[in-house]
Amino acid sequence: MSFRAHILGAAAGGGLPQWNCGCENCNLARAGKIPSQTQSSLAVTADGASWAVLNASPDIRHQLAQTPALHPTGLRDVPLASVLVTNGDIDHVAGLLTLREMQPFTLFATAGIHEVLSANPIFDALNSAVVLRETIALDTPFALTPTLTATLFAVPGKVPLYLEGEQVQTDLIGDQTVGVRLEGGGTTAYYIPGCALMNDDLRGRLDGADAVFFDGTLWRDDEMVRAGLGQKTGARMGHMSMSGEDGSIAAFVGMDIGRKIYVHMNNTNPVLRPGSPEHAEAGAAGWTIAQDGMEITL
Amino acid sequence: MSFRAHILGAAAGGGLPQWNCGCENCNLARAGKIPSQTQSSLAVTADGASWAVLNASPDIRHQLAQTPALHPTGLRDVPLASVLVTNGDIDHVAGLLTLREMQPFTLFATAGIHEVLSANPIFDALNSAVVLRETIALDTPFALTPTLTATLFAVPGKVPLYLEGEQVQTDLIGDQTVGVRLEGGGTTAYYIPGCALMNDDLRGRLDGADAVFFDGTLWRDDEMVRAGLGQKTGARMGHMSMSGEDGSIAAFVGMDIGRKIYVHMNNTNPVLRPGSPEHAEAGAAGWTIAQDGMEITL
Repeated sequence: MSFRAHILGAAAGGGLPQWNCGCENCNLARAGKIPSQTQSSLAVTADGASWAVLNASPDIRHQLAQTPALHPTGLRDVPLASVLVTNGDIDHVAGLLTLREMQPFTLFATAGIHEVLSANPIFDALNSAVVLRETIALDTPFALTPTLTATLFAVPGKVPLYLEGEQVQTDLIGDQTVGVRLEGGGTTAYYIPGCALMNDDLRGRLDGADAVFFDGTLWRDDEMVRAGLGQKTGARMGHMSMSGEDGSIAAFVGMDIGRKIYVHMNNTNPVLRPGSPEHAEAGAAGWTIAQDGMEITL
Repeated sequence: MSFRAHILGAAAGGGLPQWNCGCENCNLARAGKIPSQTQSSLAVTADGASWAVLNASPDIRHQLAQTPALHPTGLRDVPLASVLVTNGDIDHVAGLLTLREMQPFTLFATAGIHEVLSANPIFDALNSAVVLRETIALDTPFALTPTLTATLFAVPGKVPLYLEGEQVQTDLIGDQTVGVRLEGGGTTAYYIPGCALMNDDLRGRLDGADAVFFDGTLWRDDEMVRAGLGQKTGARMGHMSMSGEDGSIAAFVGMDIGRKIYVHMNNTNPVLRPGSPEHAEAGAAGWTIAQDGMEITL
């Protein structure tokens, strides 16, 4: 029995290529010169028989089709025990609409995230007779699968873009953006696809972990602005960058972590080009850049 | 200037394979023995420069990536003028969530269908500053693109599954399920991915058309029940079958239509197996079975 994490999708919202984007990376991906990546989702198991999907991306139908371990074994039997969503962002919840089809599983989220879903009747497509929506309190362990225990905890972040008001707090600590601690198969791993900054609480949790899957949205804070794609910095979007003094590469230096894996890369991030200096720099700092279909066994 | 229709997705809700389905067709598709098909969507143009997408399926990101004619030509320029949805079903609206990303286009639908969208704040991801939601009255022509005129008309159908109450009328005539008449490039074509039955009004409209893209959900009414996949007949789902006395093959006999193309096939439909007797029978009756990526030029 070992812990396995399967990268269903390595990219942030929009994916690589993003449908309407003509940036360097998106054009390279369309031309087949760098690998395409679907949107942010991770499947985990500690026994190989019962899986949980962490975040349901809009690409989930394609992702599951590419993942034999999650294919049905009978007319309607799939080895999916549960789905957990870590915020209400579209790249993390839209795939729930694909998981209709009268398939039983448990949908785990905090009260705040469940409220976002409940405010949208379209999610009633997940028939409540077969899909149980279970509310999870922060810092309270629960059985994600029969052999995996999960604990949710607050990380600095913001509300989803489509719920932003006039004022937006980008480092809100609450139940709208959470990280996940996973324990099973003798392993402790963390999954944090969105995080606005590193603080002492988070550093204390992560130190000593066997693996951390961490927010790799941007290489540098003004990357999208420089690419001419918009006015928003990473900080404004609630994501800390990889590089720089306040970046995650620097923040993790000195911590004792077995495997460090970046997930949720925006299409502008140069680490998505396997031959780029930034990809090499992240690698030299001990980080793996996730790719669709990659499996991490611990 | 000619009318072109590009099949973005040929399958009904769930696609082929459907994520949790182990029916014969889904297993064959997973094994690569028959072509996989994504969910129901059609792209149309009359000038090759300005396109409309009819129904935004959950697979739209993958579909657009496969369709060079709709790729961006600059940093954020895509040749998409508008999106039109013909009902509120998840397989026809969930893809709207992927079309966020600050891309200007017009979203056309009837008042009834816009109400379904407006009741879900998640669709506010389509920023109203760039995506104009335009309400279209039945039987009133409008400019779908600069060179294509569309007219919506009621066809017998029902409300989306996730909005069904205790009593469901499956042949409701109203603005919740519509067909589309398209005129441009010297061509008249119809797009009707969902239709509960043929009546005189519909027969009168379609007779003489250059092309009709029609509801091909099921081959026979009790197909899903026989496959052990549920209790629902085609009639209960608001779809007339292809075969049988009340089927669409029989209903179209004697009508003067240039091209007849089935779209929106459910994963259980035997016509999705290219070598099946049912595929041959539909072909012998003059019908083309749509496939992802197929282009019809008129």
